[in-house]
Amino acid sequence: MSKGTLTVISGFSGAGKGTLMKRLLERHGNYVLSISATTRSPREGELDGREYFFKTREEFEEMIARDQLLEYACYVGNYYGTPRSWVEEQMAAGRDVLLEIEIQGARNIKKKYPEALLIFVSPPSAQELLRRLTGRGTETPEVIQSRISRAAEEAQGMDDYDYLLINDDLECCVGQLDQLIQSAHRRMSENLEFAGKITEELQKMKGE
Amino acid sequence: MSKGTLTVISGFSGAGKGTLMKRLLERHGNYVLSISATTRSPREGELDGREYFFKTREEFEEMIARDQLLEYACYVGNYYGTPRSWVEEQMAAGRDVLLEIEIQGARNIKKKYPEALLIFVSPPSAQELLRRLTGRGTETPEVIQSRISRAAEEAQGMDDYDYLLINDDLECCVGQLDQLIQSAHRRMSENLEFAGKITEELQKMKGE
Repeated sequence: MSKGTLTVISGFSGAGKGTLMKRLLERHGNYVLSISATTRSPREGELDGREYFFKTREEFEEMIARDQLLEYACYVGNYYGTPRSWVEEQMAAGRDVLLEIEIQGARNIKKKYPEALLIFVSPPSAQELLRRLTGRGTETPEVIQSRISRAAEEAQGMDDYDYLLINDDLECCVGQLDQLIQSAHRRMSENLEFAGKITEELQKMKGE
Repeated sequence: MSKGTLTVISGFSGAGKGTLMKRLLERHGNYVLSISATTRSPREGELDGREYFFKTREEFEEMIARDQLLEYACYVGNYYGTPRSWVEEQMAAGRDVLLEIEIQGARNIKKKYPEALLIFVSPPSAQELLRRLTGRGTETPEVIQSRISRAAEEAQGMDDYDYLLINDDLECCVGQLDQLIQSAHRRMSENLEFAGKITEELQKMKGE
């Protein structure tokens, strides 16, 4: 059985990352979504080990000290991070792990796992992004403006990603994401065992 | 319209490269097979510009001198090479160019086009390769032995390829090859124009 891949998905708020990943998880059972560790308190209905791994500040800082996180960041006074052991267990079991994080986290993952796939999801245009943010009808103009400002900043970091997915048609985009990740299994670096084995077999056969 | 990709396909004799590429070309019209230039004489039924571009030795050596070949090699006293202009025209027209060449040529292509996809096609095992070579029933044991020796040498160079395709089930393998090449269009390096444009649009929108 071949090892699973690690895919980092980032993109503008309003690009449709959430729905995209949900559909991909439904598509086949080989995909799993990474569960973050956090120091924030569980909200109603959230379960430890399902939505998050809930940790105390001390526990989280010990995880940092022991290099047990693939990446972590601090937002509004709380830590959020990706536990290394869970991800590595899933990959060893042959599952393709999906990780939805922001650019700094994505860069850190790439440092630890150069073979990770960094994918940036974008709507087809800035105008369409604005339309989607406005169309929700739930946000104030100030919130929308701050999302746009944020997106303008995030766009500066797009070059650091390996792939760009334009989420125009959702089903088409899910298909492209699936193809991308499945194609990564064909990389020579993931098939060195096979390459070594057939080389050896041919050498033996040649000598006979 | 986005630029086409350049894909180099190599693999053991008996791996099924020919059928694989034929099926891929049938699949959709965006694929084209590169036409080699050669100094060998046309065989009956071969047309200049269809099977090969037939050249005199002087013409071929002038193409070498003018760097008009992406790669070339000499076999049994004749030159064979890949004309740069034809490949570049096809890619500029958005077509995905397929090139069936051997390892040294593949390495040369990668030097000139780092973004080229180098794909190695292998049967699932050495035993299966032997079975396919024997099964043709047209080759003498000596020819089969020399093919195996050749394959044993070629196997040493597999590591230089980006991807490995195991041709077990033909239709499945065609699908994987198609996915691989189509996914390459999603690479950030092929989408810098889009990334630049949306970044600019968002900056403008932020300033408004």
